[in-house]
Amino acid sequence: MILGNDPILLTPGPLTTSPATREAMLRDWGSWDAAFNRITQSLCTDLVGIVHGDDHYVCVPLQGSGTFAVEAALGTLVPRDGCVLVPNNGAYCARIVRILQRLRIDCVELPLREDEPVTAGALEQAFVREPRITHVAQVHLETSAGLLNPLDEIAALCKRHGKSLIVDAMSSFGALPIDLRAGGIDALVSASGKCLEGVPGMGFVIVKRSVLDASAGRSPSLALDLYDQYAYMKKTTQWRFTPPTHVVAALRCALDRFAAEGGQRARGARYARNCAALIDGMQALGFRTFLRADVQAPVIVTFHAPSDPKWNFADFFAAVRDAGYVLYPGKLTQVETFRVGCIGAIDANEMHNAVAAIGRTLERLNLRVQ
Amino acid sequence: MILGNDPILLTPGPLTTSPATREAMLRDWGSWDAAFNRITQSLCTDLVGIVHGDDHYVCVPLQGSGTFAVEAALGTLVPRDGCVLVPNNGAYCARIVRILQRLRIDCVELPLREDEPVTAGALEQAFVREPRITHVAQVHLETSAGLLNPLDEIAALCKRHGKSLIVDAMSSFGALPIDLRAGGIDALVSASGKCLEGVPGMGFVIVKRSVLDASAGRSPSLALDLYDQYAYMKKTTQWRFTPPTHVVAALRCALDRFAAEGGQRARGARYARNCAALIDGMQALGFRTFLRADVQAPVIVTFHAPSDPKWNFADFFAAVRDAGYVLYPGKLTQVETFRVGCIGAIDANEMHNAVAAIGRTLERLNLRVQ
Ligand SMILES: Cc1ncc(COP(=O)(O)O)c(C=O)c1O
Ligand SMILES: Cc1ncc(COP(=O)(O)O)c(C=O)c1O
Repeated sequence: MILGNDPILLTPGPLTTSPATREAMLRDWGSWDAAFNRITQSLCTDLVGIVHGDDHYVCVPLQGSGTFAVEAALGTLVPRDGCVLVPNNGAYCARIVRILQRLRIDCVELPLREDEPVTAGALEQAFVREPRITHVAQVHLETSAGLLNPLDEIAALCKRHGKSLIVDAMSSFGALPIDLRAGGIDALVSASGKCLEGVPGMGFVIVKRSVLDASAGRSPSLALDLYDQYAYMKKTTQWRFTPPTHVVAALRCALDRFAAEGGQRARGARYARNCAALIDGMQALGFRTFLRADVQAPVIVTFHAPSDPKWNFADFFAAVRDAGYVLYPGKLTQVETFRVGCIGAIDANEMHNAVAAIGRTLERLNLRVQ
Repeated sequence: MILGNDPILLTPGPLTTSPATREAMLRDWGSWDAAFNRITQSLCTDLVGIVHGDDHYVCVPLQGSGTFAVEAALGTLVPRDGCVLVPNNGAYCARIVRILQRLRIDCVELPLREDEPVTAGALEQAFVREPRITHVAQVHLETSAGLLNPLDEIAALCKRHGKSLIVDAMSSFGALPIDLRAGGIDALVSASGKCLEGVPGMGFVIVKRSVLDASAGRSPSLALDLYDQYAYMKKTTQWRFTPPTHVVAALRCALDRFAAEGGQRARGARYARNCAALIDGMQALGFRTFLRADVQAPVIVTFHAPSDPKWNFADFFAAVRDAGYVLYPGKLTQVETFRVGCIGAIDANEMHNAVAAIGRTLERLNLRVQ
């Protein structure tokens, strides 16, 4: 287990990070140290820049996993008498519904198939049908299947209808283009350990300053109070509670590498190459993707499980891991699938090698794909 | 800044960790990986063992800083019609009051001076005065001043009166003796980056299984739902949301070092030596401690600021940092103080050197202490 190389993570976070990013964790930082707090500030500035947010937007980092930041955004930004429309095409959309239920915020679900992106038309119909809707909580890239929802159209529609749009961009931020200048997006949530290729341990919300300023005192939680976190940081430059210092330092390094690679455009292009290499290779082995090509995001790909009755994900997972690659289970409710991520500090070579390892595993386990 | 040695953190978390603990973060782990989930399991087992919890107790880890775990414990374990007594002798007690207010849980504050431990007598009087009290939320070691509250007596009293006791043991866990076998404690909260000498990024709650089992569906937060986190982990061995994998791996290493050092007793003895070296040295420089010796915990020491009118904490902090040691500001409301931590991967030598650095700094800044 300790001998040999670590397996490559083909998972949508945690993922394989670069050695430099991990080495950034070899130092301890004091949370009161001005040098550390400058790192936090610079992270926030860079994160807003990646999505072309101007002075009207601020970035609020938050301790914990991505879900903590999603809940913080909803609990802080949506008034208790608001009503949130949630287009639901996967597990992360469903999680937003559960969060809203806990927060006792009224919510309208727009049920969709797991391979069906939301359309502006369906949203508009919901607005007409349910005029009490004040907000839309939209998952940009539904990681459950790897499905891309049309964010630009949704943002334009929300802008036109005066609905406040909160976007879960967990697995798209940094990889897919998002442009706040076009308007319509009030808040955007993501985390350190996804397409930015940091390590997991912090989320962040990029939010319109005016929307955040109007939300003082609203959060029913102290730990997840985004406004409080922002106000304290603005006043002191420090995190409100102990920051995950090593995770922050790793993200600083990861963002330097992101910029050096050429920013979102280059990162997205590399992931697109990874994704193409993966899909081509897997198709040559006989696998079929769950999603149509035009709605498949280049981040994680869902494949139908082999039809062979001997198929068992746990065995397959273990055998491919022994061959050096960590896969991801499916997260769909209806069909038997498994997933392979194309993100992290890896390139098309790794994808070719992963496909080869999967091919050898099929032979070893004597599994027929179709 | 990059040249030379990193400064030693004399702060109560983040603190100076051992190089081995940081090096444990050089690997990436998949959250679905059985090897990683065995690490989580082993952490939980070890943490329960440190406080002599038997089969009736479980450890639930949680992403985020220590405050997140405190809020999760209160929001999950206290029924909405409960009433929590909070003896208040510092900022972390006051934070518990704020959390309860957010959760809309009834709360009775027992105000104390910042240098005054709570007594069993005062608690008992509160129980008589306010029979609606169902719970006590007790900070074991009030890090604001470094004050030790008498946990054993409080636990015995709560047991006798049938009150449920939730303990914030953030800065005492691992360093000071806590023994769940004596009874009376329902839940104990701490975090990775304090006396266990891990890096910050996760908290944990050690809780009586029966109390946790009775709290299903109660938390008003999804992210901070301790029951849900526990039930999911029990079923799947995995964390409910993306775990801070590198922080977890570092804590595994830190716990191995904790055991190798000789456990709580040895850790507490080292900190006591650090504390004695610090106080003796500082007193020789003319400094006075804020607390009486008998209520001073060997974790962090509050010193009165020099009476010299030239005194300015920020300048002093910066100058001592340049000399290699990071101090901590005071957190008291009434008197001008500063704090020096004695915890982390440091021994009495570092404390002697730190005192020497403080002495040189006083001379350089031409500061009179008294
Ligand atoms: C779209 C989306 N939303 C939310 C999350 C939850 O993030 P976390 O697991 O860090 O809580 C994920 C995680 O992969 C995600 O992909
Ligand atoms: C007694 C006590 N409680 C709570 C906390 C809060 O922990 P965190 O800063 O990790 O949220 C601290 C932090 O030092 C503490 O000392």
